[in-house]
Amino acid sequence: MQKQIDYDDAITRKYPEQQVIAIVKDANGKANPVTIGWTMITSASPPMMAISLAPKRYSVQAIRHSKCFTIAFPSAEMAEQSLFFGTNSGRDIDKLKQSSLKTEPAKVIDSVLLTDAVANFECELESETPTGDHIIFVGRIVAAHVNTEMKKRLYTIAKGYKMSSVTVD
Amino acid sequence: MQKQIDYDDAITRKYPEQQVIAIVKDANGKANPVTIGWTMITSASPPMMAISLAPKRYSVQAIRHSKCFTIAFPSAEMAEQSLFFGTNSGRDIDKLKQSSLKTEPAKVIDSVLLTDAVANFECELESETPTGDHIIFVGRIVAAHVNTEMKKRLYTIAKGYKMSSVTVD
Repeated sequence: MQKQIDYDDAITRKYPEQQVIAIVKDANGKANPVTIGWTMITSASPPMMAISLAPKRYSVQAIRHSKCFTIAFPSAEMAEQSLFFGTNSGRDIDKLKQSSLKTEPAKVIDSVLLTDAVANFECELESETPTGDHIIFVGRIVAAHVNTEMKKRLYTIAKGYKMSSVTVD
Repeated sequence: MQKQIDYDDAITRKYPEQQVIAIVKDANGKANPVTIGWTMITSASPPMMAISLAPKRYSVQAIRHSKCFTIAFPSAEMAEQSLFFGTNSGRDIDKLKQSSLKTEPAKVIDSVLLTDAVANFECELESETPTGDHIIFVGRIVAAHVNTEMKKRLYTIAKGYKMSSVTVD
C-alpha cells in the first residue's frame, strides 16, 4: 500500500545508491576529486555518462576550464577517501595529495585515474544543462580502464554519508 | 592496477545498478510502464529526477504528450514484471494490463502509481536534452509516496537483464 509523504522522507528509500568520483584538473593543473551519487549512463553509442553537480562546487569551474573529467568507480576499500572527497573543497586543499590514494595519468584526456578504483572512464565534456539547483554535465567516454583485480563498488547505504559495498541476494 | 580495455567490457563493472519504472499515459490515456537503469536525482530543491530514454521508445512520445510521468522504484518481488516492461513496447500491447501489478491513480499528475513498489514519485516534465543516442528527461517531483511496508529495491546485477535485490555488507 502506498502512503503519500514528504519527498525528503520518501527519498530515503533510494539506498543503496552507487557512487562515482569525478576528477578534474583546475586552471593550475591540480587534479581535484569530488564524490557524486547523482550519476547515470546516458548514451550507449557513443558511450556517455552524466553527473549532477551543484553550481557552487569547485569542480564546476574546473570542468568548464579543462573540458574533460575522469569518472572513477570507487572500491569498497575507499569509503574513507570518498567521504573526504565529498565533504571538502578543492578550493581550500589538495584532496588527492592529502588522501593515501595512488593515481596515474589518464591516457587520452588531461586528468588522472585512481589506480585502485573498480574502473575509470575518461570523459570529454559534451554538454551542460542546468536542472533546478544542480547542473548536469555529460561526458563522452574516450577511454575505459578496469582494475586487474575484481573489486566491489562502493555505495551510499543511508543518510549521513554511510557507505559500504553490497552483495547480491 | 588499471588496465585499458574496451568500454563495452569495462562498463560491466557497474553492477549492481538501480532500476526505476517510468509510467506515462499516452494520447489514448493508456498508462505505459518502461524499465530504466539510466536514472539519477538531479536537484534537491526543487526535487528533480532524470531518466535517459532512447528516442525510439514509445514512452518518449507519451512524455511529450502528457508532460508528466511517475518514477516508481520496483521492489525485489517485481523482477518478472520489470523485465517484461523493459523488453516489450507499449505500441503493441497494454503492458500494465498484461502484468499482475496493482496500480492506483496518482494524486497530482495524470498517471498511475505502482501499489506494491518501494516508492513512487510524481514528476512534471521540466526539460529534455539529447545526449548521444538517448534523451535526458528531467522531471520536477510534485508528490512522493512510499510503501507502508519496508521493501527492498530491485537492481540489475549482471548483463542480460539479470535482476535481484542486494544486501549491505
